Amino acid sequence: MPNFESILFIFILASSVFALLFALFSTRKVLRFQEGTHMMKHISASIRKGANAYLKRQYSIVSIFFICMFLILICMAAFGLLTWFVPFAFLTGGFFSGLSGFIGMRIATASNSRTANACCEGLNRGLRVAFSAGSVMGFTVVGLGLLDISLWFLLLKFVFKLEVSAIASAMLTFGMGASSMALFARVGGGIFTKAADVGADLVGKVEAGIPEDDPRNPAVIADNVGDNVGDVAGMGADLYESYVGSIISASALGVAAFGGDIKAMALPMMMAAIGIIASILGTFLVRTKENATQKNLLRALSRGTNFSAAIIAIAALPLVWGLLGRENIGLYFAVLAGLIAGVLIGQSTEYFTSDTYRPTKNLAANSETGSATIIIGGISLGMLSTVLPILIISVCVLFAYFIAGGISDTNASMGIYGIALAAVGMLSTLGITLATDAYGPVADNAGGIAEMAGLDPEVRRRTDALDALGNTTAATGKGFAIGSAALTALALMASYVDKVSGIEGGAEKIAHLDLMNPTVLIGLFIGACLPFVFAALTMSSVGKAAQSIVLEVRRQFREITGLMEGKADPDYAACVDLCTKSSLREMILPTVVAIVVPVLVGLVLGCSGVVGMLAGATVSGFLLAVFMSNSGGAWDNAKKYIEAGQHGGKGSKQHKAAVVGDTVGDPFKDTAGPSINILIKLLSMVSIVFAALVVHFSIF
Amino acid sequence: MPNFESILFIFILASSVFALLFALFSTRKVLRFQEGTHMMKHISASIRKGANAYLKRQYSIVSIFFICMFLILICMAAFGLLTWFVPFAFLTGGFFSGLSGFIGMRIATASNSRTANACCEGLNRGLRVAFSAGSVMGFTVVGLGLLDISLWFLLLKFVFKLEVSAIASAMLTFGMGASSMALFARVGGGIFTKAADVGADLVGKVEAGIPEDDPRNPAVIADNVGDNVGDVAGMGADLYESYVGSIISASALGVAAFGGDIKAMALPMMMAAIGIIASILGTFLVRTKENATQKNLLRALSRGTNFSAAIIAIAALPLVWGLLGRENIGLYFAVLAGLIAGVLIGQSTEYFTSDTYRPTKNLAANSETGSATIIIGGISLGMLSTVLPILIISVCVLFAYFIAGGISDTNASMGIYGIALAAVGMLSTLGITLATDAYGPVADNAGGIAEMAGLDPEVRRRTDALDALGNTTAATGKGFAIGSAALTALALMASYVDKVSGIEGGAEKIAHLDLMNPTVLIGLFIGACLPFVFAALTMSSVGKAAQSIVLEVRRQFREITGLMEGKADPDYAACVDLCTKSSLREMILPTVVAIVVPVLVGLVLGCSGVVGMLAGATVSGFLLAVFMSNSGGAWDNAKKYIEAGQHGGKGSKQHKAAVVGDTVGDPFKDTAGPSINILIKLLSMVSIVFAALVVHFSIF
Repeated sequence: MPNFESILFIFILASSVFALLFALFSTRKVLRFQEGTHMMKHISASIRKGANAYLKRQYSIVSIFFICMFLILICMAAFGLLTWFVPFAFLTGGFFSGLSGFIGMRIATASNSRTANACCEGLNRGLRVAFSAGSVMGFTVVGLGLLDISLWFLLLKFVFKLEVSAIASAMLTFGMGASSMALFARVGGGIFTKAADVGADLVGKVEAGIPEDDPRNPAVIADNVGDNVGDVAGMGADLYESYVGSIISASALGVAAFGGDIKAMALPMMMAAIGIIASILGTFLVRTKENATQKNLLRALSRGTNFSAAIIAIAALPLVWGLLGRENIGLYFAVLAGLIAGVLIGQSTEYFTSDTYRPTKNLAANSETGSATIIIGGISLGMLSTVLPILIISVCVLFAYFIAGGISDTNASMGIYGIALAAVGMLSTLGITLATDAYGPVADNAGGIAEMAGLDPEVRRRTDALDALGNTTAATGKGFAIGSAALTALALMASYVDKVSGIEGGAEKIAHLDLMNPTVLIGLFIGACLPFVFAALTMSSVGKAAQSIVLEVRRQFREITGLMEGKADPDYAACVDLCTKSSLREMILPTVVAIVVPVLVGLVLGCSGVVGMLAGATVSGFLLAVFMSNSGGAWDNAKKYIEAGQHGGKGSKQHKAAVVGDTVGDPFKDTAGPSINILIKLLSMVSIVFAALVVHFSIF
Repeated sequence: MPNFESILFIFILASSVFALLFALFSTRKVLRFQEGTHMMKHISASIRKGANAYLKRQYSIVSIFFICMFLILICMAAFGLLTWFVPFAFLTGGFFSGLSGFIGMRIATASNSRTANACCEGLNRGLRVAFSAGSVMGFTVVGLGLLDISLWFLLLKFVFKLEVSAIASAMLTFGMGASSMALFARVGGGIFTKAADVGADLVGKVEAGIPEDDPRNPAVIADNVGDNVGDVAGMGADLYESYVGSIISASALGVAAFGGDIKAMALPMMMAAIGIIASILGTFLVRTKENATQKNLLRALSRGTNFSAAIIAIAALPLVWGLLGRENIGLYFAVLAGLIAGVLIGQSTEYFTSDTYRPTKNLAANSETGSATIIIGGISLGMLSTVLPILIISVCVLFAYFIAGGISDTNASMGIYGIALAAVGMLSTLGITLATDAYGPVADNAGGIAEMAGLDPEVRRRTDALDALGNTTAATGKGFAIGSAALTALALMASYVDKVSGIEGGAEKIAHLDLMNPTVLIGLFIGACLPFVFAALTMSSVGKAAQSIVLEVRRQFREITGLMEGKADPDYAACVDLCTKSSLREMILPTVVAIVVPVLVGLVLGCSGVVGMLAGATVSGFLLAVFMSNSGGAWDNAKKYIEAGQHGGKGSKQHKAAVVGDTVGDPFKDTAGPSINILIKLLSMVSIVFAALVVHFSIF
């Protein structure tokens, strides 16, 4: 019985498989390249070993958490507070999220030496290896994400024969597994990478005066391992979560808006499927000349992403028209608004963090009066940089809401569906944007290997060119991640309200969501506080872990004779081990906070308090994430700007001041900032899963 | 016809006059002390001259603003969008707010050398002078505040014979004048003081290696002037605004809750009147032994404040009972909740910023690994320190709301009145808490004079003891300021809703305040962004101004021969002038933003958007203010802790790292943090004043 709906879902499933096949194809392409000299193989193997060891231990700790949560969810299901699918959906979400990170990490650690080696032959060749590695990650994430969603859909629909609205409601709870896993991976990996980075820089660059990635630095392998477990595995899990979260929340809201019409549920998934195809086509446009400049490289990458975005913008029109009819064409413009808003936020990020524009140039000039003024300057730059993204998101939300048909009250659910579709639109190009984003850490590692293996300085120059570009694409990627997180969080908030309304006795609990209700207000205060707490916990973890690295590196410099002269090898493994231990220890508290607080708030303040909390967390989380990412990015690039010869250049007083700024910025932009994106969605997911519990047992 | 109400208002008026007389009495007490040596007189005169010159120019710029606003308000009144009283009330609010700052500054600059001189004779004598100077400020603020309120009340009631509800509504708009003036004073003064401080420290301490307050430093007079124009005049205007704002919003909400009962309007004013008497009594308990330790000093001050608080806690019970009857006794507990919450927030601030507790001790230990880790540590400390205040305020709001009778919906306006009364309770001891707070900058100045005039090191030790204590009382004072700002802002939000409902066509504009309304959500985003923008603008202003000071000081060191050897005098006036110019230039933009944005948001998003904006600004402003104040305070005290001999002591690497932290913390705690408190109230005030305009002309 291959009716129209079945064809839709077969197409969606097929696209996800197609993405995974493309990832496999890219993997084989990367593995065909040579790894280079014996020394390079050796270094790459050390990095791989460290990263594998970390992930293994991380996953074993996380499994304990998942088992506990699984049991709790099973108990809740036994008491009728959840359907039986939820505990299992929770596990698959977590598993696939972790798998995305793991695969990305495997390919990244396999391609770093290959990228370095390819750079010996030329820049274009280096770009191809690194970008192919990034593609593996990008398409693994989108492929696994859509696969998980479509498999569950088929299972619930054709095996368990659930109603569409029940399917939508059950699928919403997947997200909690994915978000929990993502938070662990982001926080743990983020602490690891920045502890190693900060520790290595503080003793190596600042105290001992040896260059970055110098093989004499005992923390140098840990630093490179960190790039893989944080920037690759963490980011993979993170974006898996964003992707899945935006699609399932939009699907659920579509069902609500169209009274159980399966086509409204399918639209976000179809958008994602088309996005996969567009992204794959886009990757073929990423190539450059041998003697390419930075500008050529950037143009090569943006050619690919722009092409993909254009395809989606065109293809979404007949898609919306065909599925939901001409009268709902407003939804198309909502998708478009999301797509455009993502690009604009990325550009605003670039303006504030790239050294080709005034803000970062001025920040670099602050180094003239020392580290204190560069810190003050960077913080105020970051805070000021929140204005544009806030305005862009505001316009996007308003536009998506009203164009989707929410002007009169009766169509409010259409408006909310429009907001959710904007998030899907923003993330539809994820396959290729993530590829351009994930290639950065590979190039970074390649540079480290080139340095440690003593390759020709020209090779390092080439990997640096790739890496510098990676900073720009990372900034754009962050724009998408933050923007989509805000939109998805708003959509999930609406899903929560829907969910509660559907529970017996829930409607009255959610009747007073106005800002004059004290439980809403208090929820707002508590929710807004959470990102601050979260940022504080993760940053102080980085500080603690970094301090232990500093002490260990100092110890090795002191105790291992001949180390500074290059006659003896440092004990790299000790630093890796130290980072592993401290980051795994430190990742637990923040995640537990993120899961326990929404339940507690619900039990004390009731459902209206939870909605307040979600709104507060979304708003303050968005602001903090933008602020911290942009401050960190600007400090990083101000330092690079000075290293390029401005304001005294490398080794000057100004440079030292800029290094302090960069070091402060590291946990800002790579630990706290990105984790907050996940936090705000996890809070909603947890609230949705525990909604029935809260409705039945809350005080207010 | 001296009926009961008239007696009430005569009592209120009398208390305000009594406060002013007590301020006069304290002034005469201070002026009886000797100014000391010729040198001390000379230095004190230079500081006074600089401060006067600054204030004169500040007031002339501010007057232009006030004239413009006055004309705008007159036009609005002419179009029937305001009553004719508002423009004049706006002027008096601004005038009295400025006057409070001016008087405080005059007495502070007259007592710095007297305090230094008194410290030659003994600690207790020094404390008495400094505390008396602080008292002048404290009682001027509360006296002028209550005077302004009661004069307007009498005028509106007995001359213009308005209805009680019309009086309450008209009086609400006073606040805008006071808040605008306060914001100018806080921002301008805050930029001045921190630019001078940072500039002086960066070149003097860090580069040239000369001690703080060394007369060879060209910025040293500017630094001392800054203490007066920022920490004294700025704080005076600020707390005048808080005090008046909390009383008038509570009065207005009382009228709404009790359907026009004048007694409900009088209650907050009576609370303030009793607070004045209790505070005056408390001041007589502030005295200590000659050989007093830090602990004795602190105990002396807290004896005074605790005694005052106890009197209020006792006297408020019969007051509430007598005015509003036994059935409304819940309001008494709301007042009490505010009083206790203020103390608790102060204690939480102390825990996080005093070097007798773990957080600041750990922060100081971060200095071992350099300035980057101490910055990361301080930021995460500040962010984490938001949790307790958030919880305290949450419990206070919920308790005050429900105890005041807001459990069922019909009594929601009583609940809101309860929240407003909690704010009044928190600020009722302002007379004495401000006295203990304002004495800090006097002691700080005295120390500077002792240093510059080359007095016996023992004198400096004594002024340092007074100053260190000032840091603790300042922390407590900040707790009150922040907590009351949040409560008052919530009350003003409710007043706004009331106000709009009272305007023709307003009720429907305010009907949908729930969080699923996109205009509310967008308002929330924009409102939450404002404190970030504001902090960014003020901090970058400090950075810019400080840089110009650094360059000027370096120039003088370079060009004036014999300066470092102490053979030639630096050009102090040049630095004072530079600070004046740059801080006045920089104070305009942030204030204009705070006034224009609420009107714009209203015109675009409508009244529901404004409510969202106010909620967002209150929540994120509260968090940012607590975070920034506590980070700044902890850095300051971590530095002092190291200077006291821990972690290598003065001059060590660790100390240098701590100085960087302290320098970053300066604009955090003394410019951005306190300004945000005013900002969140000014936004509400502006919204209230422009409510009619928005109701008639908004898009949504």
